[in-house]
Parts: sequence; structure tokens; C-alpha cells
Amino acid sequence: MTIEKKIGYHFKQKELLKVAMTHSSHSGNSTNNERLEFLGDAVLELIISEYLFLAHKLSEGKMTKIRSNIVCAESLSKAAYDLKLGEHIFLGKGEIVTGGRQRKSNLANAFEALIGAVFLDSGFETTKEVVLRLLEHNIHLALSGALVKDYKTELQEYIQKNNENEIEYTLDKSEGPEHNKTFYINLIFNGECVSQGVGKSKKEGEQNAAKIYLHQVKKISEQNN
Amino acid sequence: MTIEKKIGYHFKQKELLKVAMTHSSHSGNSTNNERLEFLGDAVLELIISEYLFLAHKLSEGKMTKIRSNIVCAESLSKAAYDLKLGEHIFLGKGEIVTGGRQRKSNLANAFEALIGAVFLDSGFETTKEVVLRLLEHNIHLALSGALVKDYKTELQEYIQKNNENEIEYTLDKSEGPEHNKTFYINLIFNGECVSQGVGKSKKEGEQNAAKIYLHQVKKISEQNN
Repeated sequence: MTIEKKIGYHFKQKELLKVAMTHSSHSGNSTNNERLEFLGDAVLELIISEYLFLAHKLSEGKMTKIRSNIVCAESLSKAAYDLKLGEHIFLGKGEIVTGGRQRKSNLANAFEALIGAVFLDSGFETTKEVVLRLLEHNIHLALSGALVKDYKTELQEYIQKNNENEIEYTLDKSEGPEHNKTFYINLIFNGECVSQGVGKSKKEGEQNAAKIYLHQVKKISEQNN
Repeated sequence: MTIEKKIGYHFKQKELLKVAMTHSSHSGNSTNNERLEFLGDAVLELIISEYLFLAHKLSEGKMTKIRSNIVCAESLSKAAYDLKLGEHIFLGKGEIVTGGRQRKSNLANAFEALIGAVFLDSGFETTKEVVLRLLEHNIHLALSGALVKDYKTELQEYIQKNNENEIEYTLDKSEGPEHNKTFYINLIFNGECVSQGVGKSKKEGEQNAAKIYLHQVKKISEQNN
């Protein structure tokens, strides 16, 4: 069955469908689906937000949580799997032999890109119908709490969000006459001084200290990858 | 000048405008703007995403970065400030005397809620016109790179995202006959065993270990706040 039959939507611009199904590993100079995935993610977030807002009198905190359980790799890859979307993705050979058609991230990304493509082709209202139909089951599961039980994921997210990595800026010294001072600012990360920034104001010194340390950590991270 | 004149949009449902302008500190049993803020944030994300997608041939990474510089407290509070939105927010007395009308978070949240309200009242296309007009200057600044210079914010976000907090699950032991085993799973956080979960499968044991530790860290965090 074609994708269009599966999702119940026929593209006016067939090119959009092709781009949505093209993974970055696919050779040739065809456009891949990364930009459409970015757009599709925002489309999904708004459609689900509006649905939760109108259909259920949930608090902001509850809506945030339930939405994140619907618009996430786990849920979207499941929806893509049910549509057998993997069969239709244009992949590079290396990606195919390493199981790319079954890879959750590829499936979820293709699903998002597909929704981005429908949105560009048809606008918000039509896309809403398509999305609410395709994600009906996942929405139901999330609302019933069945998708909210993954404690491993919840712990991971909690720690990422809450673990204290304290950044502090302190004035080391200032030099020069009152009208033309130079400020030396230390950046203290988890109690340790990791960089110093200089500036004609405290603010400028802080920005420079942050810039220097950011440069350092990015460099270290690149070396490790 | 009324808000409607300032933003160039007239509400069919005036009640929506009132809710959008009501801060949670406002007494009485009126609905506050937290739910509309949630919705408005998603509306803004999609409008800016679509705009960046269509108007500029930027990569996904660039779009993510520029969008986050447009749809953020700093940028939205500036837009709200230019509209003098602070004058129109319904605040509690305590919030007023502590400078609530100038508080960036209040301004940005009211702006988001206002956009959520316009969206419910008029739909996506009309809201798009309103938003692109109100945020024209911020979009221009973000595209020119002028909003991308805050290294302190960038460092904060980078560390939050990248700092390694390694979570590992290891099998401590299993007990019982092959068809009815019990698994004991250790949760290792940054090299230290912080909890143990028991289950009839490794997966269940892992989930329980995560559940126990999550419960612990949340309790500690509550005591500290």
C-alpha cells in the first residue's frame, strides 16, 4: 500500500513526500528530511497542545507531561511502525545493513517529516485531522497513563533537568580609574574556577568568561566524539 | 490604548483576552493564564518554525538555534514591554509591590498567553499574521545574529544538556528456577550504586530501581525547596 493510502492523505506536491522519506544517509544530491522533521515536530506539538487544551481540562503541568509522552521518539516510532513506514524510507546502504529500517530514531524522524510535509501541502486544519487520526491510540494511552510509566526515562529526564551544575560569576579584581575600569571575572563551576573573563563592565567580563569556558568544553567534547 | 488596538486584533470572545491577562497571583476565582501560556508557546514555536523554514534556507541546526532566540523569555518579554503589556496584567497585590509589572517572566508569559488566546479565537492563519507583525523586530535581530551573543545563557544550556550524569543498570544477582527467576538490578549513578530494584525480568527490575531512586531524589529536592 502507498504511504498516501496508509495515512489517508494525498499530496498535491509529491516532491514533499519524497523529501520527507529521504534519510540523510541516502546517497545522491537529493534533499534529506531533516528540515521537514524540525517543522513536523513543531506541528505535532501544537496539534497535541490544542487537543489537550480543548478536550481535557488538564493543568499546564499535566498537559506538558502528557504531550511529551505523545510527541517523543518512543510514541512516534510506534505510530510509524504501525504504518510500516520503514519500508518507504530512502536509506543509504550502510544504514540498511545495520538495521536502519527498524531503527526507532529513523522511524520517528520520518513520521515527523511526513507530518511537516502534510502541513506544508495542506495547512494546519487538514494536518490536524491526519495527526489526530494517526495518533489516536497513542493519545488514548498517554491520557490513560499507560505511556507515563517508564521510570527509566523519567529518571533520566529528571536528572538532566535538576542535577545541580552550579555556575557562579565572581569579581576577582578591577583595575584602572573609576571612569575607565577593567573588570576580571572568575567563572566558578561546581566550586572550581574554570575560566576568567575581562571586560569594561562586569557584564562584559561575565560574557567573556562564559565564552572562554564554553569554547573549552565544546573542544573537549569534540575530542571525545 | 487597549490591548486589542496595540496588537491589531479584536477578540470575538472577550473572556479569552481577560484570562490571558490574568496572572496566577490575582485573587478571586478567575481562571489564570497558565494553560493559555502553554498553548501560546506551541503556537509561537510553529509560526516561527514555518517562517524560518520557508523564508530562509537554513539548516535544521540553525533553525533550532534561531527559533530558541526568538521564542524565549528574553525576546518575548521585550516584545511585551514594547506593547506596554505590563499595564494590563491582572496581578495580586504582593506581586505588584514586588515589581510584578516589570518582571520579565510575567511579561513573557502574558505575551504567550495572549497569542494562545488569539489562536483559540481566530485559528492558525490569522494568529500567524499577528505574531509575525509583533515579533518582526525580534526575528530580524535573531536572523542577523544580534540575539545569539549571550554566552552565559548558551553555557548554561550547554552544560545542562551535555554534562554527563551517567546512569547504568547492572544485574546484581538472579534467584530461583529458570522459569520463575527473580532479578536484582543495581542502579549505578555516576559510579555509585544508589538503588536496587527487584523484578521477574531484568526490564522490570530496572524500572523498579529507577522508580525507587526517582522517588528518593524527588523527596530530597522537595526538602530543599
